[in-house]
Amino acid sequence: DSKLKVFSLNSNPELAEEIAENIGTNLGKCTVTRFSDGEIQINIDESIRGCDVYVVQSTCAPVNQHIMELLIMIDALKRASASTINIVMPYYGYARQDRKARAREPITAKLVANLLETAGASRVIMLDLHAPQIQGFFDMPIDHLVGVPILSDYFEEKNFDDVVIVSPDHGGVTRARKMADRLKAPIAIIDKRRPRPNVAEVMNIVGNIEGKTAIMIDDIIDTAGTITLAANALVENGAKDVYACCTHPVLSGPAIERIDNSNIKELVVTNTIPLGEDKESEKITPLSVAPLISEAIIRVHERQSVSILFD
Amino acid sequence: DSKLKVFSLNSNPELAEEIAENIGTNLGKCTVTRFSDGEIQINIDESIRGCDVYVVQSTCAPVNQHIMELLIMIDALKRASASTINIVMPYYGYARQDRKARAREPITAKLVANLLETAGASRVIMLDLHAPQIQGFFDMPIDHLVGVPILSDYFEEKNFDDVVIVSPDHGGVTRARKMADRLKAPIAIIDKRRPRPNVAEVMNIVGNIEGKTAIMIDDIIDTAGTITLAANALVENGAKDVYACCTHPVLSGPAIERIDNSNIKELVVTNTIPLGEDKESEKITPLSVAPLISEAIIRVHERQSVSILFD
Ligand SMILES: Nc1ncnc2c1ncn2[C@@H]1O[C@H](COP(=O)(O)O)[C@@H](O)[C@H]1O
Ligand SMILES: Nc1ncnc2c1ncn2[C@@H]1O[C@H](COP(=O)(O)O)[C@@H](O)[C@H]1O
Repeated sequence: DSKLKVFSLNSNPELAEEIAENIGTNLGKCTVTRFSDGEIQINIDESIRGCDVYVVQSTCAPVNQHIMELLIMIDALKRASASTINIVMPYYGYARQDRKARAREPITAKLVANLLETAGASRVIMLDLHAPQIQGFFDMPIDHLVGVPILSDYFEEKNFDDVVIVSPDHGGVTRARKMADRLKAPIAIIDKRRPRPNVAEVMNIVGNIEGKTAIMIDDIIDTAGTITLAANALVENGAKDVYACCTHPVLSGPAIERIDNSNIKELVVTNTIPLGEDKESEKITPLSVAPLISEAIIRVHERQSVSILFD
Repeated sequence: DSKLKVFSLNSNPELAEEIAENIGTNLGKCTVTRFSDGEIQINIDESIRGCDVYVVQSTCAPVNQHIMELLIMIDALKRASASTINIVMPYYGYARQDRKARAREPITAKLVANLLETAGASRVIMLDLHAPQIQGFFDMPIDHLVGVPILSDYFEEKNFDDVVIVSPDHGGVTRARKMADRLKAPIAIIDKRRPRPNVAEVMNIVGNIEGKTAIMIDDIIDTAGTITLAANALVENGAKDVYACCTHPVLSGPAIERIDNSNIKELVVTNTIPLGEDKESEKITPLSVAPLISEAIIRVHERQSVSILFD
């Protein structure tokens, strides 16, 4: 039985610390810094020979930095004779570049999967992939955890009277359905379309929201354009209150300003991506995925099924 | 006979432009930008189906950004059915991480070679690798060009009276010997050593430099610590004038300040790394490697030997 060790890189040290604590271990000792010219310098400061190593790294911004940190760490672990190198990647960057939407585009989500394999990863534990098809980009085992229960449980405790779960676009209906099942609520869909070319988009709402507490759910909220416009449409069409939630708070560019100025009463997110100083808003409530991930790590390490955590 | 196309990424567009001009072509059209969250977005804006594509990218700072740009570009070119994908990498970042100097270190120079192969590169054209052994990190063909002739020719035209070529450390003696051969000059070596632990290093000079014009040559000048201390030692030991040259002007951190305040009269570099606004100094003279690289590209494309450019 080989020893379990958890290492953190620089994207999400608080989450890694919490995971190690939940598992009942200390974070492995390593130094991840930069040389004067910006090149990443990694040294692993304790023996990991024959160990099952878990490396916690979200590839959130600065994404290229975080990807290279991870690849270099995997290389160092491999050369230091780790038994298995398990990547815990709560947020998978470049997930939206998962197909050629136009001619001569890259499929960077696949490229990153290949890079992880080349560096020497044995397994990846991920959470709410933008598209579940990305699992097939890997030839190694993937454990794909789901954040919907964490978000649902939070809203369940609120005991709202008359709830409707809203998908902010067509792509998210399955996710909304899952949450609605847990909260025993109906669903609605924001049906965005452009009536004619060069005419502003129209936000239709499919489903009954009048007088209800609407909870929008998405996997990623990035610039928050879609979600804040959707909130307006919900209020205009008679929703009583509007809440939103997502697993991955990317929140780039104008996101915080948009959310602060929006009709959204509260935005519930998880800590797959740390909020940091530039992403502070009184409206945002972060929930921790550490218990979920810790349990997955323990189950993987003890060769138990992880499927119980999928739903 | 397939068509030759040259593309530039963001590290060194002026050099790429000059190379395309020398070859008698225009740079290929592509858009390399960032999404709001910092992820790289690449679109190739002209067909490259069946073409021999040459992508110019130095992996200088910001190195991780430039590596990911290159990998994503290779992915896009591969999926757009390029016939061959030839990487023109005047400066190879992470070259100094080419061995385990301490336990549990990565060998990032090898990792990057593997990443380029995985992404789909067919060939790499490089210049003055930090260690020639890095060639063996690749399983694809490498053309390794040499910058010494460009630097030597510049000093030859100066017609100095009594020249000595100086290697600033033990590792650079072969390079100094090559330059000395071209300039028909003797060599000297800065022999740095620490007499006892915790005692300052002593700079001995092996060879005769008294009254001579000393020209130091190195492959990379990064923080310029070694080269400026060496210049002091040369002056203290009776050198008449001190010049320095290198292929790759990394020049990070305090480099410019150190050079400006040093005994070095002139630092001659090449444009494998652009100098940019934060690296301006009246002492620095940049020479272009575009003619060398253009000839290498033409020869590779026409299936002629490139070995003539190695010396
Ligand atoms: N980081 C990003 N930020 C914004 N859009 C992106 C990003 N990465 C990829 N995309 C684009 O988003 C689209 C896919 O998003 P989706 O339709 O939600 O799966 C594609 O057209 C991509 O070009
Ligand atoms: N970007 C860098 N800046 C400074 N030192 C580095 C860098 N990359 C690697 N090194 C270190 O430089 C040493 C190798 O340099 P050298 O002896 O000149 O080949 C190794 O000990 C590396 O850890």
